[in-house]
Amino acid sequence: MGKKNLYIIIIGCGKLGAFLANEFSKIGDSVVVIDKNGRKFSKLSVDFSGFRIEEDALDEDILIEAKIDQADVLICASNDDDTNIMIALIAKRIYETPVVISRLYEPTKTEFLEKHDVKVISPLHLSVQEYKQIINGYRGK
Amino acid sequence: MGKKNLYIIIIGCGKLGAFLANEFSKIGDSVVVIDKNGRKFSKLSVDFSGFRIEEDALDEDILIEAKIDQADVLICASNDDDTNIMIALIAKRIYETPVVISRLYEPTKTEFLEKHDVKVISPLHLSVQEYKQIINGYRGK
Repeated sequence: MGKKNLYIIIIGCGKLGAFLANEFSKIGDSVVVIDKNGRKFSKLSVDFSGFRIEEDALDEDILIEAKIDQADVLICASNDDDTNIMIALIAKRIYETPVVISRLYEPTKTEFLEKHDVKVISPLHLSVQEYKQIINGYRGK
Repeated sequence: MGKKNLYIIIIGCGKLGAFLANEFSKIGDSVVVIDKNGRKFSKLSVDFSGFRIEEDALDEDILIEAKIDQADVLICASNDDDTNIMIALIAKRIYETPVVISRLYEPTKTEFLEKHDVKVISPLHLSVQEYKQIINGYRGK
């Protein structure tokens, strides 16, 4: 298929971070998960073959330890929008990480991040789209 | 266009509930928003033309006050999954509300709700799909 395995760094091992870490590890990607709360790593599956770093990724030394300069993808999935934004910008602007994706609960900063070539995932907007699709489907009947 | 306006009850006036309430009110639907915390109604736009009920929708009398028997759509968007599940089931099973949609943060009960003809919106699953699409797009390059 010509598909390559990737080196993926994930910030935050909450529900979303852990789910993605498990998925990408399963298909053979190299995954590093960073969370300052080590208990969160319990969400990783027993088969998870990547690395765990129990530190605050806002400390740039930690990103360097995680080999940010070699990463194909950085996923910012911490529960704090500001943390996600700051790390996403550092990765994109300083380390030129090819793909940087950040979750934002509060989507007002979406445009700003997109200008810096950071892709934004807004659970709010995604949910709104789904609701509208279901309801407008019913409305059209 | 033959599209009809709907009677829509929304449980929870958080970010998602308020956003949907504003949108549907704007296009002419009749909207009732229920939240036990009246301060949440400040998220409604000045143009919001629907009704606000400051009560706990787990109390079935409140659903009756909101005329659940006449609703086309019930949206469960409170921040508590169990609250959403219980109200969704009451609406679907007792009042036969045509369209019942519930947000679930923890998607393990999705199948159960879908069996009862409740549509489930999982911000987690929607976000995961988006991440995968972006990353697999890059992988394929």
